[in-house]
Amino acid sequence: MVAVSELDAVVYDAAEVVVGPDDDVPGTKPSLERYEDGAVAIVDGSVTAVGPTEAVIREHPPENAETAIDAGGRSVIPGFVDSHTHALFAGDRSDEFAARLRGAKYQEILAEGGGILRTVRAVREATVGELAANLGEQLDVALAHGSTTVEVKSGYGLDRGTELRMLEAIDRADEAHPVDVVPTFMGAHAVPAGEDAGTYAERVIDEQLPAVADQGIAEFCDVFCEEDVFTPDQSRRILETGREYGLAPKIHAEEFARTGGAQVAADLGAVSADHLLRATDGDAAALADADVVATLLPAAAFSLGTDYAEPGRFREAGARVALASDFNPNCHSQSMGFTVALACAEMKMTPAGAIAAATRGGALALGRDDGTGTLREGASGDLLVLDAPSHVHVPYSFGVNRVETVLKGGERVDG
Amino acid sequence: MVAVSELDAVVYDAAEVVVGPDDDVPGTKPSLERYEDGAVAIVDGSVTAVGPTEAVIREHPPENAETAIDAGGRSVIPGFVDSHTHALFAGDRSDEFAARLRGAKYQEILAEGGGILRTVRAVREATVGELAANLGEQLDVALAHGSTTVEVKSGYGLDRGTELRMLEAIDRADEAHPVDVVPTFMGAHAVPAGEDAGTYAERVIDEQLPAVADQGIAEFCDVFCEEDVFTPDQSRRILETGREYGLAPKIHAEEFARTGGAQVAADLGAVSADHLLRATDGDAAALADADVVATLLPAAAFSLGTDYAEPGRFREAGARVALASDFNPNCHSQSMGFTVALACAEMKMTPAGAIAAATRGGALALGRDDGTGTLREGASGDLLVLDAPSHVHVPYSFGVNRVETVLKGGERVDG
Repeated sequence: MVAVSELDAVVYDAAEVVVGPDDDVPGTKPSLERYEDGAVAIVDGSVTAVGPTEAVIREHPPENAETAIDAGGRSVIPGFVDSHTHALFAGDRSDEFAARLRGAKYQEILAEGGGILRTVRAVREATVGELAANLGEQLDVALAHGSTTVEVKSGYGLDRGTELRMLEAIDRADEAHPVDVVPTFMGAHAVPAGEDAGTYAERVIDEQLPAVADQGIAEFCDVFCEEDVFTPDQSRRILETGREYGLAPKIHAEEFARTGGAQVAADLGAVSADHLLRATDGDAAALADADVVATLLPAAAFSLGTDYAEPGRFREAGARVALASDFNPNCHSQSMGFTVALACAEMKMTPAGAIAAATRGGALALGRDDGTGTLREGASGDLLVLDAPSHVHVPYSFGVNRVETVLKGGERVDG
Repeated sequence: MVAVSELDAVVYDAAEVVVGPDDDVPGTKPSLERYEDGAVAIVDGSVTAVGPTEAVIREHPPENAETAIDAGGRSVIPGFVDSHTHALFAGDRSDEFAARLRGAKYQEILAEGGGILRTVRAVREATVGELAANLGEQLDVALAHGSTTVEVKSGYGLDRGTELRMLEAIDRADEAHPVDVVPTFMGAHAVPAGEDAGTYAERVIDEQLPAVADQGIAEFCDVFCEEDVFTPDQSRRILETGREYGLAPKIHAEEFARTGGAQVAADLGAVSADHLLRATDGDAAALADADVVATLLPAAAFSLGTDYAEPGRFREAGARVALASDFNPNCHSQSMGFTVALACAEMKMTPAGAIAAATRGGALALGRDDGTGTLREGASGDLLVLDAPSHVHVPYSFGVNRVETVLKGGERVDG
């Protein structure tokens, strides 16, 4: 007897199905493996068939599927994997955004109690339940914009208790929400008011990391390696200790100044090095040699008004490239589609390359080598049906969300 | 007996109601007249009361209203007035966008039959019904992003018959769609293949304009005054003739090169001069003296990778400033919210100034001095409820559409 209820979903007659980058070999211009008039079948949460509609539906008839979607005239792409966010916070800092545009200097905003430490105060005052609810609302927006996997960092607590509460909230939101949430511990996100970086780094190492390991939620450890924040040596010590506790390293590197964070990432075999605006060709080569994913965050450059990172530098060096949103109170957009649009408009990535970096690239930046970010057989059935005939419309229609339908593990989750 | 059915809508308990710019006097930094804990009442399609919730609902109780919206925690702003679009077209040019990012030169794309003349061919082949349907779909997206009034230009026909068909399609779409559509004749949008500008300009004057006047749909006449397109003299002759037929002048001026189009606008007392990237302080002063609205189109700069216009130049000269989307196949975003975000991020407009320019500014650029683009008493009940506590979130949440509910003339029209 055939258990027909196993067939979660069939999406068919799509103008195109984007399976994934046709080549993960670094250093080449990525193009996409795609089927025109394509279909995807999802059984028990995973892609079981992808190809021309006729072949797929012969084996997996839509009438047997829990969810059958006629995607005529539409493009089907893998769900976005947003591998770098600070999506868990409390409070509202839009007034600082407005104040800056009225001419206030960043130092004035800090002097009035604004900036990251304002978010830290608000997060310290929030309960785990409030934090989880905040994150849930942000994930709703991310999902509506096509993110099916989202990394979320702690780092607005800056003390042991609040960092643990943030990770607990991330875990609860993951349980409650269809989006897959990937938790990263980032106690070393900033230096708390009135402390010095060296002393605080030791507290991250001695007080926070053992407790985080004991809690058992976080998967990655991240550090903000930057002038006037944490030095490469402090970053290295924190990430090494994290690794001893089983947390894979990630690092914010070479954003405003070139301090050597990329080399730390290479030395430690970090999963990713992120930002990289000031990285050199040598840094790119080091990342490529150590198989560290170069994660670029164009929305951060857009919102801060800085230059953009140069994706060509990393591709030419042979490094793999990811795109992520960097969603946070200072870079307030959950839209991976807009990140893709910026990557094309401002960093001159091709639409195919940007989509690959925002899906498969993001998965690699989270150490997921199980097909996440693709629609290959065996991958989780995480896909987007666009209200457009091609993936090119994601960046072409900048500022407009082209995601019409979202499946997560083969289940329809778009409200 | 009180005719309670007259009360179309009451929106109450809003975190803020933005009424409009508190000052239309040019040359000042605009700020917004707003009420915290505010409400709006709409009777017979028009705003009849705006102010503190308590005062408004005492006279206009929500229980008597056709539509009652508890806007607790939300911002209410006037509907966007998008005063410059080429939203009526046929065909799909996303492949050219991708080709450019793969390194194709614009000249190669033109040589392969791409560019604006490709759109012209597609439009010439479409029926009025197909064109009206295309425009209806674009207006759906515009409305979902908060545009309640949208100007649409002809100009992909470039011959009398097709230009008239485009205007007919614009008129049909206006009839069928909740958005107020404002029709502009722009036969002089480009020079048809194989013709020279001077000869074609004469045909616009002798063949097209009389027929357009006779048809009686178009309200404005627009010309693309630019190097290698139409000269200032040709532009002036076309716009003067249009004005004789009752079509108020608008002009595309000083976008890629400074050719003198702004001065033509000033001389003719045009309603608006649009683009203005290369305008000088003298041009700005001329526009201000002649009361021509300076319409800035940051999305065009974003998609073409050019510099941005400088709003400060026009404000300092005392000119009124509008923001519009320039939505067209080469600048493929209907989102006025994103235009506002770009105005802040790239042109350093304040959120208040950008919202004012995208609402009241747009209305002035369409010659609407009847309160359109505001929520003052007597204005049409066109308003947006945002899923955010302040108008600042429109640009703060770049790339994300914060419009939750749209009322047009007091009726709920958001799907």
